Parts: sequence; C-alpha cells; structure tokens
Amino acid sequence: MSTADPPKPALGEFDIIARYFTRAQSRPEVLLGIGDDAAVLATRGQQRLVVAMDTLVSGVHFLPDAEPADIGYRALAVNLSDIAAMGGEAAWMTLSLSLPSSDATWLDGFASGLFDLADQHNVALVGGDTVRGPLVITVQIAGWVDGEDWLRRDGAAPGDRIYVSGLPGEAAAGLQLLKQQRGGDSKHLVQRFLRPTPRLALGGGLRGVASAAMDVSDGLLTDLRKLCAASDVGASLKLDALPPSTSMQALFTSQQCIEFTLSGGDDYELLFTVAPERVSTLAALSAALAVPLTCIGEITAGQGVRCELQGSEVDAGSGGYDHFKAG
Amino acid sequence: MSTADPPKPALGEFDIIARYFTRAQSRPEVLLGIGDDAAVLATRGQQRLVVAMDTLVSGVHFLPDAEPADIGYRALAVNLSDIAAMGGEAAWMTLSLSLPSSDATWLDGFASGLFDLADQHNVALVGGDTVRGPLVITVQIAGWVDGEDWLRRDGAAPGDRIYVSGLPGEAAAGLQLLKQQRGGDSKHLVQRFLRPTPRLALGGGLRGVASAAMDVSDGLLTDLRKLCAASDVGASLKLDALPPSTSMQALFTSQQCIEFTLSGGDDYELLFTVAPERVSTLAALSAALAVPLTCIGEITAGQGVRCELQGSEVDAGSGGYDHFKAG
Repeated sequence: MSTADPPKPALGEFDIIARYFTRAQSRPEVLLGIGDDAAVLATRGQQRLVVAMDTLVSGVHFLPDAEPADIGYRALAVNLSDIAAMGGEAAWMTLSLSLPSSDATWLDGFASGLFDLADQHNVALVGGDTVRGPLVITVQIAGWVDGEDWLRRDGAAPGDRIYVSGLPGEAAAGLQLLKQQRGGDSKHLVQRFLRPTPRLALGGGLRGVASAAMDVSDGLLTDLRKLCAASDVGASLKLDALPPSTSMQALFTSQQCIEFTLSGGDDYELLFTVAPERVSTLAALSAALAVPLTCIGEITAGQGVRCELQGSEVDAGSGGYDHFKAG
Repeated sequence: MSTADPPKPALGEFDIIARYFTRAQSRPEVLLGIGDDAAVLATRGQQRLVVAMDTLVSGVHFLPDAEPADIGYRALAVNLSDIAAMGGEAAWMTLSLSLPSSDATWLDGFASGLFDLADQHNVALVGGDTVRGPLVITVQIAGWVDGEDWLRRDGAAPGDRIYVSGLPGEAAAGLQLLKQQRGGDSKHLVQRFLRPTPRLALGGGLRGVASAAMDVSDGLLTDLRKLCAASDVGASLKLDALPPSTSMQALFTSQQCIEFTLSGGDDYELLFTVAPERVSTLAALSAALAVPLTCIGEITAGQGVRCELQGSEVDAGSGGYDHFKAG
C-alpha cells in the first residue's frame, strides 16, 4: 500500500530483490529462502538458536557520504559481533532496507560489502523487506550455540580478570579522522571504523573459558559498566594496562587516545572476564587467532567501575554512547 | 557511536527497553531474552523454523498522524500474516525502532498496541534495537511449522480453485476514508485498515488442504499474479465472484469497490488454491473460524491472470502496489 505517491525510480522492489539479493544458498538449514511469504529453516538437534538485531541509520551509525559497500559490510559486522559475544556460530540473516530511491550503483556497492562479509562466515540471506523511505538498514542475524554453553554477560565474579581483545579506541579515532577529512592520515584507523572485525573465532574459543562476555559497541567503560551491572559486581579498571595503539599514538595526544579507548564505540572487540585459574589458556588462544588479548583489570565485589592510573583512582567521566542521551 | 550530536531527549535507550519492552516471558523457547548481546532460543525437535521480516515507514505504511497503538499493532500484524501464509504457529519476534525522539506517550501507545496483538498469539519479544533516526519500524517474526508441512506459493496446479478469505478491499477503502478525513463514515472499514486480522488459525487449517497460499498485502490481482508466476500457471479470476462488502458498497461506487478489491493492499487476507477434491473441507473450516472463504476463480495452464466479468474477459489494468514503482 501507499499513503503517499512517490516518483517512479528505475528499479522495482522485486527487481531489487532478484538482482541484488537472491543468490544460491549453501547452508543446509535453508529449506526455503527468498521468494515466499517467509523463509523455512531446519534446526539442529540440541543446539540453541541465538538471535540479534541491529539497525544502522544514515548520519547516526555511518557518515552520510559513506561508501555503500562499507555500509553493507558494517550492517552485517555489527550483528555478527553479537553472535561472537555469545560464543555462537553465525548461520543466516534477514535484511530490511529502507531506501530513498532504488539507485543501482548504491545497491551494487551495498550488496558487495554485505556479501563480502557474509561469505567469509557462510551466512545466508534468507529474507527481509525492501521499502521506500529514509536510509535505514536493519539486519537480524541468527546462529547456533551448543546446548547451554553460551557466553552471557551476567557471570562475572569477584577476582575474575577483565580482558579485552584487539586495540579498542581505534575505530573512534578512525571516525574522528573521517569527520575531520583526514582519512588519509591513517588508513588502518579508518578501516577499523569502516570495517570492524567481528570476533567470531574468539567468541567460540571463549566458551568454557570466559565467565562473562559482551562486545564493545558503546565504549569500553560503558560496556564494562553494563557487564558489571548484569553480573552484580564491580570492577577495577587499570588505565595504564589498556593496550596501546601505535597508530593512534602517532596522530593523537595520550589524553585523546585514552578517551577514544574508554569512550569510543564501534570497535566490536570482545570484553570478557576469566577466573584466575583459567587465565593460562588465553595465551594459546591469542596466538592461534592472532588477536591481542589484554588484561585490563579485575572484577571486585560491590558495584560500579573504578578507574586506576598508576595505583590511584581517577575520574573517567560517564564515557560511552547512548542513542537517546547522546552528546 | 554517533556521527552527529542530537539534542538530549527525556529517556535513554536502556530506559526505553526497560520501561516499555521488557516483560515476563511465557514461552518455553525463550532461554535468554532481552538484556544480553543476543537472545537464546530452544528449538523444537523436527519442527521447522519460519521467519519473516516487515518494515513500516511513516507516510508510506501508515499515515503520519496514525495513533501509535495502531502502528504497534500493525507492525506485528503484517508479520504474523506472513506466518499465517506459511501455515505456521507464531513464537517470538525481534523489534527495531528508529525514533526521532524518545516520546513517552508515543512509546506507551506503541507498546500497548504491539503487545495487545502479541498477547493474543502468545508471541514473545526477545530482542531488537532502539536507535535515534526517522520513524521506521522493523519486526522480524519467527514461528514453527511441522516437518515439511508448510504452505508455499508455488504449488498451484491447473484446475485448482482459487479462494480468498474475508472481504479484500475493505482496508483500502478504510485508508481512502482516512485520507479524505471521512474516518467517521465507517469505523469498520477504518479498522480493517488500521488493525488487519492476521489469519493464523486459517493458515494452520489450510495445511494439507491448500495447494498454494500467500497473504494479500499488495493487492489481490498483483498477489494472484505472483502466486501464478511462482507456480508457473495462469488463472481465470471471476470478478462477479469477488465477495461483496456491504460496508464498501454503502460508501463507494461499484467501480470503486472493484478497484479496492483488486488493487488495494493491506487486507492481509489469505489467497490460496485448493484442488477440486479437497474443496469440500473448506465449508467446515470457514464455519469453525467464522471467516468467509470465497471461490473467486480457477487456476489454468499457461501464464498470467485473465479477469472475467459475466463470462467475458475484461482488462483490469496492472493493479497493485510496488514500493519502488508506486504511483
């Protein structure tokens, strides 16, 4: 139906689906894919289904002049990160595209970025919706976890060590460069923002090892606070232990670097806690996956996150992003 | 993250989720609901998962002055209709809300309409995303079908009778009244537009009976053409057999009525085909569910839909809605 009468663009809804989003399916779960009222999927014995949904809005989650391929990649990456944070294996997705017009160049780019990442993780697109409207993209991802063996965020206990993967803050630094039209200063930082790496292999490796886990999407400090609140514990965060990024340090002051690391979202690294007796397994995991895993503090009794610098408590501010309290 | 710096509204993202969208779960599938990186769901033995996704954009799928409760109801209804069209049982949903501001009155209304319908069908909200942006709502629905026993749209064969449930066209007539600010002329028609009834019980009853089925969302003629194309058959549609709506006839000319019926979307009635030897079971189903089921034509060999009026072929135009070719 239509309550408005928009002008005619080049491609119809069904042309868009057929041309850009219908591909041969390689996953055995997909019994019926795109083209009917709904998709039909086989389940896997005792495995549990894991589902997450993330939405990207132009000007909020990506810059209005972002490359469509980067938008497509990102739309899936942020969802895969949620599956990683559960220790799951990604399986299929549905896609909602609200588009101002059916621009073939944009759709070509978007689909190439989306499927670039989908193919890396063998994720099938099984359905969705394509409508005319403001540029808003929603992906729902589904995956599998074995039995009860998923990573949750409410299992941290006092004494557990707090770890983060990769070099959080680099994505925020990359975004800052893009905003200042200094993207050429560090392609590495910009790529960390545009094409974050969902840590699926790491998430899988942390099953049975991490006591709690989540992905860093709103900022390390904010997300650690969420993990602590869910687990009903506190934390001591050692700012001098934060993993240093030489790419950031080359372009920003140490104060800026620490702000990016504490408050910047978009890295989609994993933040997790490990009981002391299991810490010894992490070195092998880090080496096998070629992902730095850094101990940045310890879970404590009580509530809230205390930041320490050279042994003294410091005020790190509220740090982090809330969509409806952003500033 | 934020690439823009919007002003501060009253409620934060997490307040919105906690206040409006977190409820006690009653479905046994929901092992982990809202609050972690993803939801975790139990599967059901040999049953298949059915998933569909629909997006509503302000000014396209609902009038900009629509009541938030009606928008919430509709966001789920259009998704439930897809499960009905597969013969499935609805189970859970995820919700993406892109909102210009965190308006408590709007959220209250939206949530009440959404859960009003969710409770009728015992659908759990298990996750989603809440972001600031233009008003765009996406729901992904998931449900179950037994084994291979789902309704598909590609099974129609020559000689099958074509049926439609309810009185298609009433929703389009209701929309027309709203656009003309004549909503008071027929509350019934307006309600058919604002609160369409997903035909879940009918869909379930048609398993093993219908050879093909889909829901009427883009208009009866367009959707029948899709069903025929998927099944590689043609159809003869008898315009004098279309079920008459006395509510429409009281307010619109017979030409308008036929246009609403053929081209109006939004009814979310089921369009289905039944082999002649199974037609006899439909009367009991119609009576049990108190839903009119009307034979409106017959599947033929060949391609395309021919419309007949008093035995003669007539041109019914292209009829129906395409988001990117709308006019």
